[in-house]
Amino acid sequence: MSTSKRVTITDVARQAGVSIKTVSNVINNSGSMRPETRERVRKTITSMGYSVNYSARSLKTGVSKLIGLATFDFTQSFTALFAQSLIEVARERDYGVVINTYDLDGTGLPEAVDRIPSLGADGWIFLSGKPLANEGAILQQQYPIVFVGDFDAYGKADSVRVPSREAMDALVSRLLAKGFRRIGLIGAPEGVDANNVMQASEGAGPLRLRGFVEAFSRLGIPVDWNLVIPESRWLSSDGERAIRDLLGRVACPEIIICLNDALAFGAVHELQRMGLQIPQDVQVIGFDNVQECQFSTPTLSTVDLHMEAFASAAVDMLIGRINGDTGPFQTVTTDFTFVERASTRALR
Amino acid sequence: MSTSKRVTITDVARQAGVSIKTVSNVINNSGSMRPETRERVRKTITSMGYSVNYSARSLKTGVSKLIGLATFDFTQSFTALFAQSLIEVARERDYGVVINTYDLDGTGLPEAVDRIPSLGADGWIFLSGKPLANEGAILQQQYPIVFVGDFDAYGKADSVRVPSREAMDALVSRLLAKGFRRIGLIGAPEGVDANNVMQASEGAGPLRLRGFVEAFSRLGIPVDWNLVIPESRWLSSDGERAIRDLLGRVACPEIIICLNDALAFGAVHELQRMGLQIPQDVQVIGFDNVQECQFSTPTLSTVDLHMEAFASAAVDMLIGRINGDTGPFQTVTTDFTFVERASTRALR
Repeated sequence: MSTSKRVTITDVARQAGVSIKTVSNVINNSGSMRPETRERVRKTITSMGYSVNYSARSLKTGVSKLIGLATFDFTQSFTALFAQSLIEVARERDYGVVINTYDLDGTGLPEAVDRIPSLGADGWIFLSGKPLANEGAILQQQYPIVFVGDFDAYGKADSVRVPSREAMDALVSRLLAKGFRRIGLIGAPEGVDANNVMQASEGAGPLRLRGFVEAFSRLGIPVDWNLVIPESRWLSSDGERAIRDLLGRVACPEIIICLNDALAFGAVHELQRMGLQIPQDVQVIGFDNVQECQFSTPTLSTVDLHMEAFASAAVDMLIGRINGDTGPFQTVTTDFTFVERASTRALR
Repeated sequence: MSTSKRVTITDVARQAGVSIKTVSNVINNSGSMRPETRERVRKTITSMGYSVNYSARSLKTGVSKLIGLATFDFTQSFTALFAQSLIEVARERDYGVVINTYDLDGTGLPEAVDRIPSLGADGWIFLSGKPLANEGAILQQQYPIVFVGDFDAYGKADSVRVPSREAMDALVSRLLAKGFRRIGLIGAPEGVDANNVMQASEGAGPLRLRGFVEAFSRLGIPVDWNLVIPESRWLSSDGERAIRDLLGRVACPEIIICLNDALAFGAVHELQRMGLQIPQDVQVIGFDNVQECQFSTPTLSTVDLHMEAFASAAVDMLIGRINGDTGPFQTVTTDFTFVERASTRALR
């Protein structure tokens, strides 16, 4: 590669008789200058064959300054929220982000991981939508990895987890302490029930359901399993259907906890369609604190999982490994906060 | 690379005395089988050192079966909607998607493009958030490119555009034909006004504003520029603020068109907070038809820009080029549909 002959932005600025900043503004179609100046700089760029050389840094340092994210698709609002937080945090650290998506229903993470050698990032963040097979063997790779989400990393990589069980336990404990008893839950995992819920050790659904049950158990209050509705996909349409299932069988609970905000939006929609007023007749709370919670009617109370801190922890651990940190693997669990908006009056 | 010695899924199945499908189920933690079987297959996988080999196909054919998407971040709901459509369409064509994000406010697309040589996709889809500098020189690369969005490709690559001007013209023409006159618009680009709107030739904002003005002009009805509110970011918080700006100055319009759904959610929220009823007092319509439109209160009328057809066109053009199509560059403009929901009663 003949990098020594490459035309630089300084060459262009000198030739056009303008500042480097002005050339940069022309390249980015930004800034304010006389149209003739913009045109002259544009012509200079073309005549000199200048092209922006971001990989010069990479050639010099041997690193790409690129972090990889392997994630399932964007049907879940959580994915976009996490990706956006990751992009912002990485940008502050002067890293770009490349995202390799995989099919949650198909071959999944193994397929994404097999493609990683051809994608030149310095390290990868794996967001898994399923438990890891084969005792997390997929985490044993030649490049730095941080594993994020709610699943077990088997001690084979740094990992960052959200406090799913703890947040739900604290939420339900608060509601029970205020005297609420008829509390519904939408989005329970299929196959986890009264018999095996206390064995749940990974997965947002199983852990949140376990936290729910533990809060009741601590006070010796039985869980009403008629109020626990399984929904595995967590889309708004599922929340809508769950409400029909629930209210087709039992009287409306006092409070309905949804395992993500998308489910809650669907639930709120269907409850209102049925003529119920929120929060007067029934209170609704979600998980994630996506942006839309602030603009729905009513605005949505939710559990904020501190997505920026979550992304920061993952990025900082990964950059540490990229820079040669060889210490033992760490697991970080981020914090949570309840955000009370108009869909509840029970959280303060 | 000693691919000939690599342990295959067939070897594992034979050794463990199970079907290939069963091994696949163990790898993916899916399917139903006796726990002992799962454990035995897992042990066989570990002892034989098997790892899933998706890149074998790549080694054989010289292609990665990966499409790249260069896009700005996920603050805009449109980005997630388009990425998700692209992922689904690509998956149907047996391609994966890798996403290289860039900073819309910073060095932008040039930085993303400079990283592309290190990201092993067979071809790239560029989604630009700004006009291309230097007469689209960035589209002249060594790999297949399809350019998508609302900006000019200068004839230097295949491109897919949404019908921003046409859709807005048709929408406003329909409203005017029904007798509505006081129609507001939120999200107008800064710097485009009555003096230069007819010169707008690219960009979703300028083109939609131009379509708005053209519909009025065709009937000889003057546009009331007091009802046109500039907002360049198109987030819900901007929609909220735009309503305060608008109603701080003039009486509420009969209909408010928002240049994307996120703006509309913010507008609806603020209108309701001010005590206005939708659609009785004011009707609101968005653009994009994101999933949340179906679950907001009221549900949101919007312009559907046929995102799946948009993604299909881009993917199919790109795969054609990857497979050696050397014909002249094409521009495809997708179709649109009005979706009437509870926030309007004027669209039928």
